Amino acid sequence: MDEAIKARNAAKLHLTSQQKNQLLENIANRLQRDKISILEANRKDLIEAKKKGKNAAFLQRLTLSENHIEEMIQGIQTIISLDDPIGKVLSEKTLQNGLLLKKVTVPLGVVLIIYESRPNVTIDVSVICIKSGNCVILKGGSDAGNSNQALFSCIRGALKEENLPEDLVQLMGNDHDEVAELLQRDDLIDVVIPRGGKGLIETVVKNSRIPIIKHFEGVCTIFVDKAADFRKAISIIINAKAQKPSACNAVENLLVHRKIKESFLVLLKEACDKENIELKGCLETRKSIDIALATDEDYRTEYLEKILSIKIVEDVGEAIEFIAMYGSNHSDAIITEDDDVAARFLQAIDSAAVYHNASTRFTDGGCFGMGCEIGISTQKLHARGPMGLEEMTSYKYVILGEGQIRM
Amino acid sequence: MDEAIKARNAAKLHLTSQQKNQLLENIANRLQRDKISILEANRKDLIEAKKKGKNAAFLQRLTLSENHIEEMIQGIQTIISLDDPIGKVLSEKTLQNGLLLKKVTVPLGVVLIIYESRPNVTIDVSVICIKSGNCVILKGGSDAGNSNQALFSCIRGALKEENLPEDLVQLMGNDHDEVAELLQRDDLIDVVIPRGGKGLIETVVKNSRIPIIKHFEGVCTIFVDKAADFRKAISIIINAKAQKPSACNAVENLLVHRKIKESFLVLLKEACDKENIELKGCLETRKSIDIALATDEDYRTEYLEKILSIKIVEDVGEAIEFIAMYGSNHSDAIITEDDDVAARFLQAIDSAAVYHNASTRFTDGGCFGMGCEIGISTQKLHARGPMGLEEMTSYKYVILGEGQIRM
Repeated sequence: MDEAIKARNAAKLHLTSQQKNQLLENIANRLQRDKISILEANRKDLIEAKKKGKNAAFLQRLTLSENHIEEMIQGIQTIISLDDPIGKVLSEKTLQNGLLLKKVTVPLGVVLIIYESRPNVTIDVSVICIKSGNCVILKGGSDAGNSNQALFSCIRGALKEENLPEDLVQLMGNDHDEVAELLQRDDLIDVVIPRGGKGLIETVVKNSRIPIIKHFEGVCTIFVDKAADFRKAISIIINAKAQKPSACNAVENLLVHRKIKESFLVLLKEACDKENIELKGCLETRKSIDIALATDEDYRTEYLEKILSIKIVEDVGEAIEFIAMYGSNHSDAIITEDDDVAARFLQAIDSAAVYHNASTRFTDGGCFGMGCEIGISTQKLHARGPMGLEEMTSYKYVILGEGQIRM
Repeated sequence: MDEAIKARNAAKLHLTSQQKNQLLENIANRLQRDKISILEANRKDLIEAKKKGKNAAFLQRLTLSENHIEEMIQGIQTIISLDDPIGKVLSEKTLQNGLLLKKVTVPLGVVLIIYESRPNVTIDVSVICIKSGNCVILKGGSDAGNSNQALFSCIRGALKEENLPEDLVQLMGNDHDEVAELLQRDDLIDVVIPRGGKGLIETVVKNSRIPIIKHFEGVCTIFVDKAADFRKAISIIINAKAQKPSACNAVENLLVHRKIKESFLVLLKEACDKENIELKGCLETRKSIDIALATDEDYRTEYLEKILSIKIVEDVGEAIEFIAMYGSNHSDAIITEDDDVAARFLQAIDSAAVYHNASTRFTDGGCFGMGCEIGISTQKLHARGPMGLEEMTSYKYVILGEGQIRM
């Protein structure tokens, strides 16, 4: 509870753009300086996780490399270079009665972020919240405890050195009861952002009185139309599945147009074998290539591993229906050279990101030019898809008059 | 439950701007034509409400006049004249890798609105949802049952005549269990908007799995600074309190700078007596004018009647603190000729609308040029203040490529 009260107080402070950027610069410098001890802390977490028998996807998400720290620093530099999102006049008009009506961006206030094993979230989220004038309470996964603590000490150190209240960014311990208590305090916390799997999201949705922005799983689908360029299709599928299988924007389901199944599936199998991608498929798929059977459950599963479930469909209409049924409204793609079919797909698919002839892996704050990201919202309210600075703001109306009253 | 399934299906339909405007025109014509029977139905509700001993504010909210119906029709005409909010490209950029990234507006989907006694909400909300491509399930207060049914039959009739699915707009009966069930279906409903008092909001927040946009009470405050123009101040206060006391943007609390208390309070009392406004005040106020004592509870109360609670404050700083403590983040105003003091107030007050030298009564979709409104959001997430067409949209990213993969 203390965290929330402290954060509420800290949220009253309005930092200037210069103060915010200087603080971010300081954090970046500390990440550079403390690289070795951060990697050291991460190694401890990895050893523990391996002991606990965590799977490959989990370990991939938990791992920090020098490269990752470089990426965090680059993310911070981008965030510094972006405009201050607070105090922007979104619209301005003079009403007939002479009132001047301005819509101005403000911070959300106090943000609680609950995340799982990715330690980079600690930095990415803090940096975005600082620049967008929000106070943040971080609740990271216990498996990343050492890594998070090492990263967080860079933030704390920077706050101290810049003479700013340390409560602007807080890292919670592992007390689950405390989180449950916080979720009741809609008087102190403005928004809670859970990033993670079904269990986490479910718990937060059930127990929170505070508005939520869900960052749920990605059951992403690629549809290969009969008018697809096979070379593009294979390259995109391999990329979407294998470049980083543990990412939520990795592809899980593949739909293939009936008319091209024979020729395409053989090519696909060849390419997937080379990349050690395990294929499962519907009965019809299995007539063309020798793979395991995909169940209904497979089509609903976010594997986060090199497993791809295939289904043959009649046309784009059936593909759209399949995605509405099994997808998680995250990222979906169509591969086709037929622009009319593509247009229909792009219009009908109700997901945060819909692609034509490109890999679903691009759904990412960095790729979208946001520097880094809070995460990827899978809901429609407030923010959808990658969340950066703008998405962490609200607005208020400022109305200037000369004594106007309502008639 | 049926309602939600029907709505989900209807939401798959994409109406053209022309279809939507024609439907709205049809509804407006029916309201004109059926005026008498609507007023008749409303009279029945009023008789029942009076029998039940409902208070003046309640009856004012429930009452429909010919004028109100004219306002609804004018609201519809404005909504017709406004741009279609769906399919708008909010931003468009080409990434370094050649991907074209477009952010395009889409409807929220299925919206559940739970409201109390105002029957005009039935029309206003339906009209905005139609134009913004949303399907809406209406749950009005049982006290307005006849009025709502009469208004709703104009919508149903228009849908039928235009050969559109009737499930685009649905009006629920009075089964409370059914509402509780609906609140669990986040798979079918995208957002629930409760408009009303503490009890309603509390119930929805506690029981809903669906994201909520709260439309809560307005405990609005006006601060009269020492540099205030007294004539403006009195006129604004009387307007904000007496023009429509049952509105959520009516003023409830008045703060007066200590330096001007003697001279100002006497003037105020005179003006309020003429308007039959009951004053309550802190001990210090009561040394200047003879009024009842205002308790802590008074300052937290949305009276929705001609009652105004006064407190003397030291300066703008104390006024800001008071509003942070007792206000409901709805609409607050400062009356001053000192622009520096005004600027400090406008910046520090964390409310949906903050006024300088104008009545709080302007916080309204109609006044803000939105035609009519879904209501006034009192939360920071997604939409804040009056909600019109734009506020009933989400967006998706449409990404066009030529085979790009992530490196």
